[in-house]
Amino acid sequence: MDNNATTLVDPIVKDAMDPFFTQMYGNPNSLHSFGTEVRPYMSLALDRLYEGLNASDEDDIIINSCASEGNNTVVKSLYFDKIVGFKKTQMITSSIEHPSVSSAYMFLEKLGVDVKWLPVNNQGLIDPDELRRAIDPDKTALVSLIWANNETGLINPVKEYGEICRENGVKLHLDAVQAIGKIAVDVQDVEVDYLTFSAHKFHGPKGVGGLYVRKGAGITPLIHGGEQMGGMRAGTVNTPYMIGMGLALELARKHLEYEATEVRRLRDKLEDAILSIEDVEVIGDRNMRTPNTILASFRGIEGEAFLWDLNQKGVAASTGSACSSESLEANPTFRAMDIGADLAHTGMRFSLSRFTTEDEIDYTIGVIRSAVSRLRAISSTSNKEYI
Amino acid sequence: MDNNATTLVDPIVKDAMDPFFTQMYGNPNSLHSFGTEVRPYMSLALDRLYEGLNASDEDDIIINSCASEGNNTVVKSLYFDKIVGFKKTQMITSSIEHPSVSSAYMFLEKLGVDVKWLPVNNQGLIDPDELRRAIDPDKTALVSLIWANNETGLINPVKEYGEICRENGVKLHLDAVQAIGKIAVDVQDVEVDYLTFSAHKFHGPKGVGGLYVRKGAGITPLIHGGEQMGGMRAGTVNTPYMIGMGLALELARKHLEYEATEVRRLRDKLEDAILSIEDVEVIGDRNMRTPNTILASFRGIEGEAFLWDLNQKGVAASTGSACSSESLEANPTFRAMDIGADLAHTGMRFSLSRFTTEDEIDYTIGVIRSAVSRLRAISSTSNKEYI
Repeated sequence: MDNNATTLVDPIVKDAMDPFFTQMYGNPNSLHSFGTEVRPYMSLALDRLYEGLNASDEDDIIINSCASEGNNTVVKSLYFDKIVGFKKTQMITSSIEHPSVSSAYMFLEKLGVDVKWLPVNNQGLIDPDELRRAIDPDKTALVSLIWANNETGLINPVKEYGEICRENGVKLHLDAVQAIGKIAVDVQDVEVDYLTFSAHKFHGPKGVGGLYVRKGAGITPLIHGGEQMGGMRAGTVNTPYMIGMGLALELARKHLEYEATEVRRLRDKLEDAILSIEDVEVIGDRNMRTPNTILASFRGIEGEAFLWDLNQKGVAASTGSACSSESLEANPTFRAMDIGADLAHTGMRFSLSRFTTEDEIDYTIGVIRSAVSRLRAISSTSNKEYI
Repeated sequence: MDNNATTLVDPIVKDAMDPFFTQMYGNPNSLHSFGTEVRPYMSLALDRLYEGLNASDEDDIIINSCASEGNNTVVKSLYFDKIVGFKKTQMITSSIEHPSVSSAYMFLEKLGVDVKWLPVNNQGLIDPDELRRAIDPDKTALVSLIWANNETGLINPVKEYGEICRENGVKLHLDAVQAIGKIAVDVQDVEVDYLTFSAHKFHGPKGVGGLYVRKGAGITPLIHGGEQMGGMRAGTVNTPYMIGMGLALELARKHLEYEATEVRRLRDKLEDAILSIEDVEVIGDRNMRTPNTILASFRGIEGEAFLWDLNQKGVAASTGSACSSESLEANPTFRAMDIGADLAHTGMRFSLSRFTTEDEIDYTIGVIRSAVSRLRAISSTSNKEYI
C-alpha cells in the first residue's frame, strides 16, 4: 500500500533488462559491434517513451538517473541561462512540490534568486489565478509545478498552467512523477516545456528517469561531459534500465484504463472503509485525485505508532513522502492546506498499484480497523492518566 | 579488447543484484519492513566500498549515477562554494582529463572562471612541477586531475599532487575511474579530498558510481532534494546497483594481484606482438601504465578503417574514449603529448580485463597482423595512384 514511494519492477521488465548485463553489455557509444548491437534496443525504448508521452519527433527525451536529477537539471539550467546572465530575476514554484524541486529552489534563494512560492487552495490545488498573479513576463525565468502531488494524489490543473505560461512567454516545468502510469500524460495536450519522470514509480527500476524537453526550449546540462543524449546529459548510458523504462512506460500506458477502473474501484473500496471509521478525514475530492492514492487523517492517532501497527501486520503505508520520512516533520501538504497540527501528524497515505489485489485490500481494511481501535484505546487510557 | 570503455558485469555481481528488482524492491527510505529489509545489504555494500578505498569511517562515500555525475558534482560544488562567493577565482585541471571534467570546466570558463589547463610532459604525464607553478593558495579553489588516463593508461604521480595541494591548502579532486580495479587506490596513502569512480569500469553495472569525500572537505549537492546520502545526493537509491557496485569493488580488490601479474602478462604479450610490427609506436612506458592498457600508433593506417577491420573479425578496440567516439577528433592525449597529426589519427587502444583469456590475446594478435598488412597494402596502392 505504498506504491507512491516505489513499485515492484514488473517481472516482464526485469526479463527485458537481463540480457544487457552479461551478454549485450557493450558501451553503446563504442563504434564496434559490441557497442552498436545495443542501439536498436535503445531506439525501441526511446520510441516507447516518445509514444508514452505523445512527444513529437523534434522534442527531446533525455535519459537520466531519476526525477530528482531531472528536476534539478531544469531548475538549474534556467538559473544558469536566465538568472546568471541577468536576463530574468524571478522563478516560481509552489509550497507542495517534491523535495527535489523545493530544495533546488531553496538553494537558488540562498544565491539571491527571487523565488515565489505559490500556496495551495482549500482543495489542496495550486490555483491558476495565483500563478497568473505571480507571473511577470519580464522577470519570470521558469515556473515549476507538480502535476499530481505525491502525498495527496491531487491532480493540478496543468493545462491551465500551460496556457498561462504560454500567454506570458514563460517556460513551464512539470514534475509528472506521480502522474505517469496513473493518468494520461500527453505533451500535445498540455503546453509544457520540461517534464520529469522516474521509472520506479511505474514498475520500472530505481535509478533511471527521463526529462522531456520541448523542441526549442533548450537545456543546459547538469552533467557536462561526453556526447551521450546529444550532449545534454553525459555519462555512459545505463542501457538495461533505459530499455526497462521504455517497456515499463509502454506497459503503464496499456494499463491506464485498468488504473482508471479497477485500481480506482479497489482504492474507493479501501477509502469507503476508512471513511466508515469515526473521526477520519480523507484529504481532497477523490475525483480530483490519481486513482490509486488516499491520504487520510485519523484523529487521535499518532502517525508513527499507526505505521508501526500496520507494519507489524505486513501492511506498508507512509506518513508522507519516503524522501522525507526520516525527518518526521509534519506533512508539507497538510501545512500548505492549513490543516491543524493535531491532524497533520496523523496523516497516513495508502497508494495502490496495478498489482494490488482485492484480497490485499480486504486484508488491509481489517488491519486498519484493528490498529485504529487498539491505538485509540491506548490513547484514551493514557489520556485518563493525565486527567 | 575494449575494457576501458566498459566491462562485462561479473555474473556473481549480476546474481547479487537480482533479488532487489522484484523481491526486495522497497524504497530504503521507507520506514516499513519492505524498506528497511534492504538496508543491511546497502550497509554491506557501503562497507565494501569503504574497504575498497581504505576510507575512514568519518569520510563520506556518496552513491550516484556515474563518474560523470561525480566529477560534475565536485567541480560545480567548488564553483558554488568558492567562486560564486568571490572567495577564490581560479581552478586548475589538465589537458588530458575525461570529458566529464574538461567539459564541466569549459562551462565554468564561459561563466568567467579562470581555469588553468596543465599540459602533459613528453612522458604523457602531468608534471607535479607544473601544478606547483600554477597553484595559488589565495586564488585556487580546486585542482582536478586524472589518476590514470583512460586512453593511454598512464598513471599520474597523484601522491605528489596530494602533497602539493595539502601544502598550499587547496582541495584536490582525482578522477580514479580508470585506476580502480587496475591498481591500488588508497585514500590514506594519497591525500585526496574528492575521488570519483564508476562501477561499470570494474565489472559492475552501468549507471552507478561513487564520490568519495574526505571528512571536512564538504560538498554542495548537484542534485538537491530528499535526505538520501545524508542530504548530499538526492534521488531514490538504486539499491540493486549500489549492492552490485559494493560487491564488484570487493571482487576487483581481490583481483588486484591478478591484474598486476596475469592481466599484465597478457597485455605485455599483446604489446610485444604489436611492437614487432614495423612502424608502430606504443604511447608511454609500460611500467608507468595500468596493467591492462595499450595505446598504439600504426603509421599509415587510418584509425577508423583499422577499427572496422578488427570489428569484422570480432575484435573490439577503440580509437579513443567511447565518450567522444562519435566526434572522430584527434585523440586529445596525442594532441597534448604533441604527437604529429599523422600519428594522432592512427591511435588504437587495446584494454584487457581479468576475463580476458590467452586464447583471445593470441587470436587478437593474428587479427591485428593481418589487418595491418591488408590496410598498408591498400594504402600503398592508393598512394601510388596519386604519385
